[in-house]
Amino acid sequence: MQQIENFKSIIDKYKVVFFDAFGVLKNYNGILPGIEKTFEYLEAQRKEYYIVTNDASRSPYQLADSFHKSGLNIIKADRIISSGMLTKEYLDLQVRDGIVAYLGTTKSAHYIESSGLHTLPISEINDTNINKVSALVFLDDEGFDWAKDLNKAVNLIRKRTIPVIVANTDRAYPLTVSDVSIAIGGIAAMIESVVGKQFIRFGKPDSQMFMFAYDMAREQLKINKTDIVMVGDTLNTDILGGNKFGLDTVLVLSGNTLAKDFSTRITATGISPTYICESAVIEGGDLGF
Amino acid sequence: MQQIENFKSIIDKYKVVFFDAFGVLKNYNGILPGIEKTFEYLEAQRKEYYIVTNDASRSPYQLADSFHKSGLNIIKADRIISSGMLTKEYLDLQVRDGIVAYLGTTKSAHYIESSGLHTLPISEINDTNINKVSALVFLDDEGFDWAKDLNKAVNLIRKRTIPVIVANTDRAYPLTVSDVSIAIGGIAAMIESVVGKQFIRFGKPDSQMFMFAYDMAREQLKINKTDIVMVGDTLNTDILGGNKFGLDTVLVLSGNTLAKDFSTRITATGISPTYICESAVIEGGDLGF
Amino acid sequence: MQQIENFKSIIDKYKVVFFDAFGVLKNYNGILPGIEKTFEYLEAQRKEYYIVTNDASRSPYQLADSFHKSGLNIIKADRIISSGMLTKEYLDLQVRDGIVAYLGTTKSAHYIESSGLHTLPISEINDTNINKVSALVFLDDEGFDWAKDLNKAVNLIRKRTIPVIVANTDRAYPLTVSDVSIAIGGIAAMIESVVGKQFIRFGKPDSQMFMFAYDMAREQLKINKTDIVMVGDTLNTDILGGNKFGLDTVLVLSGNTLAKDFSTRITATGISPTYICESAVIEGGDLGF
Amino acid sequence: MQQIENFKSIIDKYKVVFFDAFGVLKNYNGILPGIEKTFEYLEAQRKEYYIVTNDASRSPYQLADSFHKSGLNIIKADRIISSGMLTKEYLDLQVRDGIVAYLGTTKSAHYIESSGLHTLPISEINDTNINKVSALVFLDDEGFDWAKDLNKAVNLIRKRTIPVIVANTDRAYPLTVSDVSIAIGGIAAMIESVVGKQFIRFGKPDSQMFMFAYDMAREQLKINKTDIVMVGDTLNTDILGGNKFGLDTVLVLSGNTLAKDFSTRITATGISPTYICESAVIEGGDLGF
Repeated sequence: MQQIENFKSIIDKYKVVFFDAFGVLKNYNGILPGIEKTFEYLEAQRKEYYIVTNDASRSPYQLADSFHKSGLNIIKADRIISSGMLTKEYLDLQVRDGIVAYLGTTKSAHYIESSGLHTLPISEINDTNINKVSALVFLDDEGFDWAKDLNKAVNLIRKRTIPVIVANTDRAYPLTVSDVSIAIGGIAAMIESVVGKQFIRFGKPDSQMFMFAYDMAREQLKINKTDIVMVGDTLNTDILGGNKFGLDTVLVLSGNTLAKDFSTRITATGISPTYICESAVIEGGDLGF
Repeated sequence: MQQIENFKSIIDKYKVVFFDAFGVLKNYNGILPGIEKTFEYLEAQRKEYYIVTNDASRSPYQLADSFHKSGLNIIKADRIISSGMLTKEYLDLQVRDGIVAYLGTTKSAHYIESSGLHTLPISEINDTNINKVSALVFLDDEGFDWAKDLNKAVNLIRKRTIPVIVANTDRAYPLTVSDVSIAIGGIAAMIESVVGKQFIRFGKPDSQMFMFAYDMAREQLKINKTDIVMVGDTLNTDILGGNKFGLDTVLVLSGNTLAKDFSTRITATGISPTYICESAVIEGGDLGF
Repeated sequence: MQQIENFKSIIDKYKVVFFDAFGVLKNYNGILPGIEKTFEYLEAQRKEYYIVTNDASRSPYQLADSFHKSGLNIIKADRIISSGMLTKEYLDLQVRDGIVAYLGTTKSAHYIESSGLHTLPISEINDTNINKVSALVFLDDEGFDWAKDLNKAVNLIRKRTIPVIVANTDRAYPLTVSDVSIAIGGIAAMIESVVGKQFIRFGKPDSQMFMFAYDMAREQLKINKTDIVMVGDTLNTDILGGNKFGLDTVLVLSGNTLAKDFSTRITATGISPTYICESAVIEGGDLGF
Repeated sequence: MQQIENFKSIIDKYKVVFFDAFGVLKNYNGILPGIEKTFEYLEAQRKEYYIVTNDASRSPYQLADSFHKSGLNIIKADRIISSGMLTKEYLDLQVRDGIVAYLGTTKSAHYIESSGLHTLPISEINDTNINKVSALVFLDDEGFDWAKDLNKAVNLIRKRTIPVIVANTDRAYPLTVSDVSIAIGGIAAMIESVVGKQFIRFGKPDSQMFMFAYDMAREQLKINKTDIVMVGDTLNTDILGGNKFGLDTVLVLSGNTLAKDFSTRITATGISPTYICESAVIEGGDLGF
């Protein structure tokens, strides 16, 4: 069984740290107590850091804002790479005009808007505008009527040959200590199997998000992949994705993967992190700077 | 390309005919004009017939009633075998007491009730009764709040090791000439992939429904499988299922499979019916009895 | 956690017992020591029993013969229902003439031969006879050249719209205490995904094998499903299949499912047996007859 | 239906062109007649070009060499990005020592060797060296005994928690005008489903290969994604992958996708290229330079 190591001693070996958000910096109870110390230490040591998150429900500014409101003031919007940003880049590059129909909240739709594109909730698609729809985006599991709007989405996809984008690959997310909630990625997989077409997915473990963060880090520092460590709580997104991109990885036990079963799950999935730590929090005594 | 044959000349070769309901006897416009002639002919010829349908939303009595209301008076409840009946048999045999939680309408739940079992919509499951739940059944895509109740279903399945039964394997069903609707089988497949457990499915192409009908037919006539022909509109349920059970099959072009593409779909799926007919309607002049 | 119970006290409650073969009656070391006592007891008590096995590599006579050679003399061929028998019944009913191409040993092919059909190993299919092929059957993982003959199978299926039958649904089988071997069901799944067509599968957990055994038992005794118990070592074939067919089930810990992890696997899969026993061997002192 | 356009008029709009190899530059008959003109034109116009290929059977030098032998002399090894290169980069970054077991030819193994790593065909793995194996790589469908070595691979993966890398995502490749061959990606998918673990896959449609090519192009020219067009013959690798990475795409009809059914397949899959051309060959009269 792999040993649990000290988080600070690990990040001391790298110049850049990528963090998952949910299960690493925060959970259903809010921000992890003491996590701000980790970022103070990184800044003091002039290490670069980025938050790499499968979250398309809000813009980086809104995500940063939610960190600030929870007392984690240090993280700025330009440190956050989300699967929603990849979705926006895709729309900017590949969808030039027309209506982008979406499933999600109004808030989630606003930040993907691009010049030339008009976003419209799927509920407002009808016979008069269906032929102007140039893409459909799955953004968030909230903000729409599942029964009515998922059926509308199925029929839109059957009638129009348009790109369908899934802005979050997660199938479920933790809601409380005991409950989970179906994520938009799980809903999209159902629709995909009903219509038999292949959707475009953005999010970990796909390497595109890591590449985005890597490009940003390289603008700041002269580094290569061996200078970066990815910190996450989920084997099949954070660890598999980081590993596949060529990064060393830290599995933290503060989220999806629990201390009591990380060993069984590593063996069962075959996905091995480089290191395992209790959490991404640096203990007070450890700081020593 | 396979030839389109005359329906009457085919059923003349068999003693028993199994029919799918939707796409064969009726569609979104109601009962197929003239279909009652087919059943009059079968009765006149003393051939046995059964309706074998992936429908768990209503009991055989309610299904027969809906045929009668649409003008097809000849079909009695005891001629109808539905995936809901298999679900009821399963609960009778395997679930002895406790609460059966369900997704569907109240009507769909009533007829699966068994002695010793109490059915309760998933919306009424809570901390005080969750430990008494002994099974969860997916019955119908209507009668519940998808967003709220599907999330409740996910968490029930995560917390309790109970059998989960899907009473209809279809992923979608036709709503109008151009639109489909997601069926409870499609919803159940999403939940199955989110929780990672294996559900119990009843419905074509599984052979259990054909066996049920075969047992009923053998109580009436001394027959074997070569005396039966299965008539359906869908390759991967009716035709694959009938074929696998060892029955000859007729693909009719009045429902899911259209005259313009049956040939392509047979080649693409590798599922071949024994015969192909326009529909299960016997033309007036054909009757001659 | 479910309790481990005494096997004799369980079978005393039923009139008919269905047994899986591999992992229950025998394993890679041969026949389970003492298992003949179980069958002596069943015969003394005038209980019916059947062996229900996903094995298409040999006929029931050859299977019985291999039991006899290993010292289990009591089991006759007419007590054995195999997925190979379903395959033979399918060919008898649905494939009237032409060549049945197969992957497997010559021995496995002989017993599926029917009047009017000629079996030929896939290696002997060529341009002159390909148009006479009326079915392809996956029988056994031995007896052919995987690289050469699997590629021939792919191209045969692409060129001809014929039924493809998989006579064993298992993906792997135990070879020694530590090693497994890829089964013909695993190989067939690969070919299915490469060609994108749907194959016809025979074997547990599908209910067709249970129905076959049930029909045979009803010819001997006036029983219904509550009089039968299914004994198996594998959750997702024996237990799920028996359970779905409406039978009570015994999980034995002498094969695929080990004493150290049955509890975890029941929770993970959601598949619950009615009872759990060490093995199907009745201890000497238990017999008392 | 989308119109077929002139290839030269399309590439005139871009600064960089990415090409798939098989089905675009060559097929089972060898190099496409006249394709060298396309590269002469690109060089004359000082446009950058890269070959982006799901081929892990040979190194870029060996691939370039095979182009030269077939009469396409212009393409140098440093223009070729293969899924094998990503595999090598992964091993360099993530697997520091020990034995890399492989399935493939000796040639395919040589070029992935890294300092500190020793490659060994799976056939040479045994009880004395199995604990030194630090990764398993699926490289090529040739060079090993399928029956023996695939079973060894299954048991290696069951016994050791090591990364398993699939260096080519294709399930099949064309062998002649009418036959295909199972590719190493198809074989790996079978093994993945037998062992129930998640492998690491390199190749289109994953964006990692496009990123690799994009990084190389940016070292030569100051460009962004809108300056690049991806040319390929396969919707679900070349076109989906290019599109997802944010590139415009050209579907050519000289390989997997045929003139007679491109329209049906675009509708069926939902994957739309930006343009469609007969082939990547520039007609003599078109050149005019």
